[in-house]
Order: sequence, then structure tokens, then C-alpha cells
Amino acid sequence: MSIFNIKHQSKKSSARTGILKTAHGTINTPFFMPIATYGAVKTQSSSDIKKLPSDILLSNTYHLYIRPGTDILEKAGGLHKFMNWNDIILTDSGGYQVYSLQGMRKITDDGVTFQSHLDGSKHHFTPEKVVDIQRSIGSDIMMMLDVCPPGDANKKEWVEALNLTTKWAMRAKKYYDQTKPLYGHHQIISPIVQGGTDLNLRKQSAMELIDINCDMYAIGGLAVGEPKEEMLKVVNYMDTILPKEKPRYLMGVGTPADLVENILNGVDMFDCVMPTRNARNSQLFTFNGKVNIKNSKYKDDFSPIDGNDFSLMSTQYSKAYLHHLFKTNEILGLRIATQHNLKFYMHLMNEIRKKINADCFEGWAKDFLCRYNNE
Amino acid sequence: MSIFNIKHQSKKSSARTGILKTAHGTINTPFFMPIATYGAVKTQSSSDIKKLPSDILLSNTYHLYIRPGTDILEKAGGLHKFMNWNDIILTDSGGYQVYSLQGMRKITDDGVTFQSHLDGSKHHFTPEKVVDIQRSIGSDIMMMLDVCPPGDANKKEWVEALNLTTKWAMRAKKYYDQTKPLYGHHQIISPIVQGGTDLNLRKQSAMELIDINCDMYAIGGLAVGEPKEEMLKVVNYMDTILPKEKPRYLMGVGTPADLVENILNGVDMFDCVMPTRNARNSQLFTFNGKVNIKNSKYKDDFSPIDGNDFSLMSTQYSKAYLHHLFKTNEILGLRIATQHNLKFYMHLMNEIRKKINADCFEGWAKDFLCRYNNE
Repeated sequence: MSIFNIKHQSKKSSARTGILKTAHGTINTPFFMPIATYGAVKTQSSSDIKKLPSDILLSNTYHLYIRPGTDILEKAGGLHKFMNWNDIILTDSGGYQVYSLQGMRKITDDGVTFQSHLDGSKHHFTPEKVVDIQRSIGSDIMMMLDVCPPGDANKKEWVEALNLTTKWAMRAKKYYDQTKPLYGHHQIISPIVQGGTDLNLRKQSAMELIDINCDMYAIGGLAVGEPKEEMLKVVNYMDTILPKEKPRYLMGVGTPADLVENILNGVDMFDCVMPTRNARNSQLFTFNGKVNIKNSKYKDDFSPIDGNDFSLMSTQYSKAYLHHLFKTNEILGLRIATQHNLKFYMHLMNEIRKKINADCFEGWAKDFLCRYNNE
Repeated sequence: MSIFNIKHQSKKSSARTGILKTAHGTINTPFFMPIATYGAVKTQSSSDIKKLPSDILLSNTYHLYIRPGTDILEKAGGLHKFMNWNDIILTDSGGYQVYSLQGMRKITDDGVTFQSHLDGSKHHFTPEKVVDIQRSIGSDIMMMLDVCPPGDANKKEWVEALNLTTKWAMRAKKYYDQTKPLYGHHQIISPIVQGGTDLNLRKQSAMELIDINCDMYAIGGLAVGEPKEEMLKVVNYMDTILPKEKPRYLMGVGTPADLVENILNGVDMFDCVMPTRNARNSQLFTFNGKVNIKNSKYKDDFSPIDGNDFSLMSTQYSKAYLHHLFKTNEILGLRIATQHNLKFYMHLMNEIRKKINADCFEGWAKDFLCRYNNE
């Protein structure tokens, strides 16, 4: 039985809406996932996230493995219970974090050896181990361990990365098929397409992973520093290769404009630290672009942040108050800004789904991208 | 017309319940005020505070004067509108903060000159100026500028402080009577009794302030480092001097045990940074004493923090999860702990009011103080 049903396919682009089915409920696509690195979206409670509304969040395998560790997560009965979140959880493979670590980090055919950012202790991730960790977490959607080269990698590195990624995906799938969930609910697993910005390599990676026959496909190795045009070119091409009937997840992307442009290319799932991290750096998203609330021009601006009424910043607090909270380092400021930005992203995705279903997404997207010209 | 009605006077102690009337609603006494230094209770939104439930909060005149400043507060239409809080606000006089400042600070008959903690700029507070600032804030209850000597002051300093406090109170009352609220709602003003821990000086201070004829009386200059027995002795004595029919506010106090003991001495109003500050330092209050949630014994303790079900920590999150949030420096941990401690204080005050009304407070207090033996 398929985990994904397409609800509406746009006639003028690859944009589509659909329904993704998981053990913790169904979710309308395309969607954006707030990041709960350590099992908490920074400043927000699990019920805040539910009320955005978001039915899904992303948590980081590497971080949860380091703290609290799989023993605590297993004793808790999994991450859902640990963090009091009864909706969908996707976990990444931990690979991206491991490759970003300073210090010793060695990739072999078997896996990757690295040192904890916390205490320098040595650890080893294999495709099998990463499945095990995500079994301990109990995420609804698990990612396979891949090799993700940095943005300045060359073709030789892309080839090596994609070859190892395919081998590891085959091992991960085999191990996944041999093991069972720990908490009784089904866990989806997804491979990750690599290949840098070389279309032939991307095709090779995708074809090899399609052979493994999984329920969904992720596009990795993008948003790592390459020019935006290159990213769009790759995703546009992947749209012609990846099976239409399965959900596509573009990892680590991105700005509001990135979401709109990649949905035109048939992407269904996104995640990014941008709404939450930028909020903590005083940057707010609005339908007319970005606002730095610490700018002194807001100190006596008692108007709401946005004409829309979807967030606290639009309905309960003024720009002047949020400016004051940031100037006085009040944690409440981080909370309000984070909630605003996440609500902006959720509101944006909801608008997009409505526009796709109404067969008018492409015109709306053109207008949005024109107004939102701050990339 | 009196702002205060006594509802129930205990026969076995000076404990009483009552109703305090303000321009932003009535509130049951005795009560505890959460601290919103800069117009925000640290980590909590105004609606979080309302939902505790608390009908009142305390904000700091000195801090609001420095940031955002009275010009912004006036443009906003007062602090209520600025911070989106439609309930009661009490502001302190700013004196306590000014006397705590490092660096230049000079008290004369006219007032006190000091340097901003932010940029070293020079400022001058007089009894009249402090009324003006609180008119700009629009607080429902304003405090008069007093002189608050440190905990290690001697009798000579206490005498000087009380004499100046009386003079300033007379000036403040005169100026208060000559000025009008800026936002159309009535503002109560309260003098502050000084005199250190010398009962004769306390009596002198109280009698002089009673002559000024205000609607309520505050007891200041305590909880500044003196032994607890001295504090209780002074409050117990003030109970025999201050008019029974007016509310009494014991400033900056205190621990849960302090509240219980001073309510026995007829105090109606309290404020303290303890529940909020201690929460941010990982200390939780429970009916069985204090808990440091960072202690490693909580890392796999999935039980709720307290048998009671009045807070998120009792109903939605485990000790192990909060332990994890503190270990990973997640802001959500500060939020949950703060909310827990404030709910503990609010729950405690609600219990106390019920016990007083049921004429069984004294026995309950004895039992509580016995269990809560961690002062």
C-alpha cells in the first residue's frame, strides 16, 4: 500500500498536493518541517508547534545520539513520549552533522568515524547503526546514512560520495527489512540522492536508489553553498527522474522563495533552520520581505508586523514591543519572533496548497517571488 | 471609598483574606506578584501569566525608565498597552535598583543622582520625578521613592533613611495629589516603611507615614540580608502598628515559607524574583521542597515533578525531559521551569486563601512549614 496519494497535479508546472500517510497521522503535502534538534523546537513547546499548526517536526539523529542518548530514549519509550509530541517525527541520518564536525572524521567503506562535539569521544556510524539509532528514536520517517560532500567539492568527490551513498543505501535497506520497530509503529525509510550539481551523476545516483525501491526519495547535497541557480537546475532535473508517485524531500531548503520555486519543480517536503535561527537573530519574515526588528526605526512603531493576522506579532504585540524585548535581551522576544516566523512558513505552505488545488499556483508564485525580492 | 475589603479575618492569627480594588480589576488577597522587570516576565508571555492564573504583575520603574524610556511608554499609551496586559500592574519606585547600582550614586535631600547601568549616563530621581515616571507607565499601584539602606547598615543610617523617606513621602503625596493619570485610569500610591530591624525606628516610620494617609502601606528595607528571625520580628511588630483596614505589602519577599509565615503576621501582598530566577537556575519548587533538575539522578526519571497536576511539568513533561533540556541549554527548559515555579507560587497562594477562609490556615501552615524545611 502506498504511503502517498497525489491529490491534485498542476497542469502548468510540476507542483502537486498530496497526502502522506505515517504511523502518527497523515499530513498534507507540500509541507515544511520545523527543526527540533534536541527534541525541542528552540523556545517552543510541543503544543506550540501543534498549534502553529504543524503536524510534523524534524529532529536530529546525531544530536539525540549524543544527548540524551539512545538508552534514555528507549527507557522513555521513544522520542514521541520523551518530548510529549504525538504527531509525526522525521529524523535525519546524522550524516550531515557528522560531516560538518571539526576535528577527526574519517569515512571508510564501512562507515564514518568521528568525535563528539561535546567531549571529543570517538564514535562510529554505519548505515546499520544509523537505522538502529532511529529505531531507538522511533521516528515515523528515517533517513539512510549518506555521504554529503561540502559545497566546494569537486567531481571526483561527488562520484565517490554517490558510490558510497548507493552502497550504504543497499545495506541500510537490507538491515531495515531485517529489523523491527521498537515501539510497535511502522517507520518509513528514505534514501538520499547525491551527485553534487552534475546532472549525469544525479541521474546515476537517483537510478541506483530507485532500484532499491523505497517509499520516498530525498534530494541531499544541496543548499551546501552552491549558487541558487545550480540548486534549482538539479531539482528541476530530478523532477524528470524521480518517480512521480512517491514523495520527494529536498533536504535543508530553504528561504520562502526557495520553497515556492522548488514546489514548482515537484518537491513535497522541506526543512530548514532558517525560520527559527533567523528569529533568534531578530529577523522576521513577512509577505513583503524580511524585517530586522532590532532596527531603531521600530522603537516607536506600534503597528503590527504584518497585515495578516496569523501570528501573535500580528494580533497581540507591536513591532515596538518586540524591538524592546530584543534590545533588553528578553527571552520572550526570541519566543515571539520564532513563533512568528514558523507561523509565516506554515501560513505560506497552506496558501501554496490552496493555490495548487485551485489551479492558480503558478501566477501566485510569480507575484509572490516578485514581491518577495530579498534573496 | 476604600480600595480594600477584608473578607475573612482569622481568629487564631493575623492572617486575613480580602479584595483589593484597582483600575484594572479586583484581586483576592493575600497574593504574590510575578516580576516583569522590563515589561515581560522572563520567558513568559502576558497571556501565560494570565493563565497561571495571576491578575497582577510587578514591573520595575528604574528598568523601564532606562529602556524603553518614558517617551516610548507614553507613545504606546502606557505599559498595559505596550506589553498587551489588561490586568493589574504594580511598579516599584526604582529606589531599590538605584541603591544597588555599582558606581556613582549620591543621595541628597532633593533626591538621588545615579549612573545608568547601561551606558553610565547620569540621572536624577526625586520623589516627584518617580511619580511622573509611574504616571508615564500608568501602573495601577505606584510606590513612593524611599531610601533603602543595605542589609549591613547601622542605626545611624537607618535613622537618616527613615527621616528622608518620610520627607520624600510627604513630597510624593503632595505631588501625586496635584497631578493626574495620563491614561484616564486611577493610580493608587503607597509609601514604604523603613527603619531597619529597630522596632522603635519602624514604629516612628510607620506613624509618620500613616499621618500622610494613603490607601496602602508597604514594608521596605527587609529581605536585604538580615537574619530571617529579624525580618519576622519586624513584620510581626508592624502588624500591631499598621492600620488593619488597609492592605500591607512586604516588598521583595520571599521563599514559600516566608510567604506562609508573613501571612500569619497579616501581610497581604508579596513579590520576589525567586520563582522566576531560581527556575532559570534549574531549581524547581514542590510541596516537598526544592529540586535541582540538573542533578544526574533525574536523567532517567520519567515521573512528573510533583504529585499535583497544576503545571505543565506535572501533566505534560517528565523530570527526565526537563533535565535533558537544561543539559542541552534549550530555552524551552527555562520556560517550563519558570512556568512551573510561578504556578507553584500561585497554587500555594490559592491554597492559603482557601485555608484562611475555612479557618484552618494556622494548622495547615504548621504542617507546610514542617514539610517544607529547606530554608
